[in-house]
Amino acid sequence: MIFTATPQGLCFSLVSEEILSKTKIVDLSADFRIKDVATYEQWYGLKHGAPQFIKEAVYGLCELNREQVRKARLVANPGCYPTCTTLSIYPLLKAGLIDPQSIIVDAKSGTSGAGRGAKVANLYCEVNDTIKAYGVATHRHTPEIEEQLSYIAGEPVVISFTPHLVPMNRGILITAYANLKRTVTYEEVRAVYDAAYGDEQFVRVLKKDAVPETRWVKGSNYVDVNFKIDERTGHVIMMGAMDNLVKGAAGQAVQNMNLMFGLPETTGLMQAPMFP
Amino acid sequence: MIFTATPQGLCFSLVSEEILSKTKIVDLSADFRIKDVATYEQWYGLKHGAPQFIKEAVYGLCELNREQVRKARLVANPGCYPTCTTLSIYPLLKAGLIDPQSIIVDAKSGTSGAGRGAKVANLYCEVNDTIKAYGVATHRHTPEIEEQLSYIAGEPVVISFTPHLVPMNRGILITAYANLKRTVTYEEVRAVYDAAYGDEQFVRVLKKDAVPETRWVKGSNYVDVNFKIDERTGHVIMMGAMDNLVKGAAGQAVQNMNLMFGLPETTGLMQAPMFP
Amino acid sequence: MIFTATPQGLCFSLVSEEILSKTKIVDLSADFRIKDVATYEQWYGLKHGAPQFIKEAVYGLCELNREQVRKARLVANPGCYPTCTTLSIYPLLKAGLIDPQSIIVDAKSGTSGAGRGAKVANLYCEVNDTIKAYGVATHRHTPEIEEQLSYIAGEPVVISFTPHLVPMNRGILITAYANLKRTVTYEEVRAVYDAAYGDEQFVRVLKKDAVPETRWVKGSNYVDVNFKIDERTGHVIMMGAMDNLVKGAAGQAVQNMNLMFGLPETTGLMQAPMFP
Amino acid sequence: MIFTATPQGLCFSLVSEEILSKTKIVDLSADFRIKDVATYEQWYGLKHGAPQFIKEAVYGLCELNREQVRKARLVANPGCYPTCTTLSIYPLLKAGLIDPQSIIVDAKSGTSGAGRGAKVANLYCEVNDTIKAYGVATHRHTPEIEEQLSYIAGEPVVISFTPHLVPMNRGILITAYANLKRTVTYEEVRAVYDAAYGDEQFVRVLKKDAVPETRWVKGSNYVDVNFKIDERTGHVIMMGAMDNLVKGAAGQAVQNMNLMFGLPETTGLMQAPMFP
Repeated sequence: MIFTATPQGLCFSLVSEEILSKTKIVDLSADFRIKDVATYEQWYGLKHGAPQFIKEAVYGLCELNREQVRKARLVANPGCYPTCTTLSIYPLLKAGLIDPQSIIVDAKSGTSGAGRGAKVANLYCEVNDTIKAYGVATHRHTPEIEEQLSYIAGEPVVISFTPHLVPMNRGILITAYANLKRTVTYEEVRAVYDAAYGDEQFVRVLKKDAVPETRWVKGSNYVDVNFKIDERTGHVIMMGAMDNLVKGAAGQAVQNMNLMFGLPETTGLMQAPMFP
Repeated sequence: MIFTATPQGLCFSLVSEEILSKTKIVDLSADFRIKDVATYEQWYGLKHGAPQFIKEAVYGLCELNREQVRKARLVANPGCYPTCTTLSIYPLLKAGLIDPQSIIVDAKSGTSGAGRGAKVANLYCEVNDTIKAYGVATHRHTPEIEEQLSYIAGEPVVISFTPHLVPMNRGILITAYANLKRTVTYEEVRAVYDAAYGDEQFVRVLKKDAVPETRWVKGSNYVDVNFKIDERTGHVIMMGAMDNLVKGAAGQAVQNMNLMFGLPETTGLMQAPMFP
Repeated sequence: MIFTATPQGLCFSLVSEEILSKTKIVDLSADFRIKDVATYEQWYGLKHGAPQFIKEAVYGLCELNREQVRKARLVANPGCYPTCTTLSIYPLLKAGLIDPQSIIVDAKSGTSGAGRGAKVANLYCEVNDTIKAYGVATHRHTPEIEEQLSYIAGEPVVISFTPHLVPMNRGILITAYANLKRTVTYEEVRAVYDAAYGDEQFVRVLKKDAVPETRWVKGSNYVDVNFKIDERTGHVIMMGAMDNLVKGAAGQAVQNMNLMFGLPETTGLMQAPMFP
Repeated sequence: MIFTATPQGLCFSLVSEEILSKTKIVDLSADFRIKDVATYEQWYGLKHGAPQFIKEAVYGLCELNREQVRKARLVANPGCYPTCTTLSIYPLLKAGLIDPQSIIVDAKSGTSGAGRGAKVANLYCEVNDTIKAYGVATHRHTPEIEEQLSYIAGEPVVISFTPHLVPMNRGILITAYANLKRTVTYEEVRAVYDAAYGDEQFVRVLKKDAVPETRWVKGSNYVDVNFKIDERTGHVIMMGAMDNLVKGAAGQAVQNMNLMFGLPETTGLMQAPMFP
């Protein structure tokens, strides 16, 4: 069992038939997340070095692809934004209640999402007591999210995705907007969420009107989701909160490993959230 | 000259023909911001106590209503979110380049926006190192924004407005999304912004691809705005940053006073932003 | 087994011979921490309501009083500052290398130490981006620390104790200064520390010149300690870092329970520190 | 008029008789702060490149050396810690009320004190939500402080100086401890402070029991000071708060310039503190 957490493009040379014949790999980079090679190459500015493994690689969003992960030799561990965004939107998109072409995702991330490199932009005094958008309309997680939403919708989905840098260490908050296809009740939508996640151990559907907050998932593998119907506008607001370093990275990698080895899915992952 | 900064509903008894015949008033509460009495009463849960002054009250968003403010006896100083949102959206809405019914506003605010009351929700340990939405689809600034956007659009506008609480002292960041009515170029939109704000002293249109950040306006009366065309989706993302305690409150009140008394508009307001 | 975590003075009525004959108590308040009743009554401004149990109560600083805790019916769980301060100073004071009357303690605490009450002083905007001392020369943990240091020194010890409020959620950092009685080498002092804590599971003596930081103990029951000899001045600087909510409160209470029930001392307490 | 703000050692080549014959210099580096060349060379690990100007250079702590600054061609602008520390200790040391050899300085600084270089140690996630000491017993500001205190005391003074890194952008807080030579009353010490600073425009002696906080001086040139007599221990705690980027750097440089050119000392420096 190997976890690879390399810069983009480096995992190509690490994956081979010889290695996969001997062990399983969970890759935390983006190299095998996107099925469409051209899309990968366009957004990452790289030539894909091992396209022969793309088809085999399973996108390791456990809640959606559990059975494929169990049988996989090579798992592409999802990005942090794609994990939280996809899980936030999945129930209503799957149920056909929202217009797939109307989705707008406004994302907020703590600073650990930027890595530990010594860059001026990530210095304490640059990040503390301020907020900004970044990568507006150009963030590399956009095509990864779009591919997943397209599978769910059964049609090509294009989204508007705008991430923001927040003065906090950990955490991702997704606020996603979409047009409802028709009038719905709270109870109807709630039933859709419960059906989608009722059996999930790491996705918690919050009570009515409770909002996901990153503090309630910090340090844990949980994703908290909820929704709000805006009757005045015909929108639904779908929200999700997650720890980018756990469910958004290492935690989900362990979750994938557990599935690949037939272990209980929660093994090593039941650490409680830490507040404050 | 009187500045009133009272809780909602309290300003009614302070305003009278007798007072207005002797002095001018800038009211920092919401009591005279909304022209439609029924809308005010519905969102604020109050019976309006002085409807006879609503028509006379000028909405003190100086950049849009400068001439009316100059002649006003009673100015309703705008809310913090409405100021930043309206100024962010104004150029493209006025120019007719966006669909007025497609506007989604995702707002982020520092904690001083919540006031200085002793509430558990605003304690340091509740706010630090976390982020959440609040007042989803129900925030009282929504109808105030809608009224202003309706004037600009020349038709009734309904928006989706979702504010978030950010772990920082000051600052508001607006990220607004809308559908472009047709294909546009950067230069074309830029010209629209320059025409709208080229002569303004407190609105700064940033360079291409620069994003507004609250740190660059902190402590000042500036509003920084910019936009990004998302060609893939046909959206435009309109962004604005402002200090909620200055341009979003006391600073704009002084700006209104300056106009009402024929003083230079920048008097007392040229304090530089403080970074870090 | 009962944990009591009541405001000062409330635990008196909860402790009785009848209860103690049936179950054990770990009290997290200050009510049974101080052996000298007059001192307690002076600093807390209360009349002690159950002085008959003071003698029996064991001061639950596990590393110093392990054997007494094992046999105790009633344990007074130490305060956060006293735990970190006493453990920081203990090795050198016990070894007789510092002048007991020269100790100055400069303490820094995160805001969770102030509790969750709705007080203006603890609002986000009051605490963020600032630092101050509080309770200068008057903090109630002073006599508790002095009593413990007096036991260790074998003579009455009086200290200067000044806590500071730091803009962070959790954590206590102690910087303690004392005069060395004679010239010492690093190796000599290091050996004293190793002898004191070599077998301890929750006290970590850091490598030479490493400084304790609260982030390396956050969420855990660890106390990190170290020292620096200042040859120019004849001082030694003793430092300790701890999570006030774990080793400084609930964690140490569990550690005491473990000892009282003959469980492994680390049961339930091996949660790793969380950084960032 | 030239302000030099160069890395240590670089100012040597910029200062010459020719330049000083034509213009005045305020140097913000440490190059001319320390009168004893050997001390400078030992702590900074540099050979001093222009020792002929050390004697002429005036230490620009305006409140102490105002008259010399007025006549100076070359002013060494003090370090941030030395400014706040010296001003905190000055009144009682000058008055002979404290033992000069008993001074312990525990300092806390915001992160802007570390500069804007891209270092991992100053990344947001390394600094946020934690606190640590650094440069324990070895910080380069120590000899600068000692030289100033020695002038004030009229005898060589050695101090223990320990700075800490605090998760905030700006601000320095000094907590200094010393032994009182004899019993004193609050009123007596207060009179000493008032005599020292009663005419100063930038040093504010706070009311009894008020503690200096960095938030009340942020963005301004003020230094807030106060003291607390600890009768139990015979110590006095002297506290000072200051903005390291204003009075601790650029603000004091302007204050020096004002003196050198016969301008009002407050010119350009009356910006109000910004809270929150």
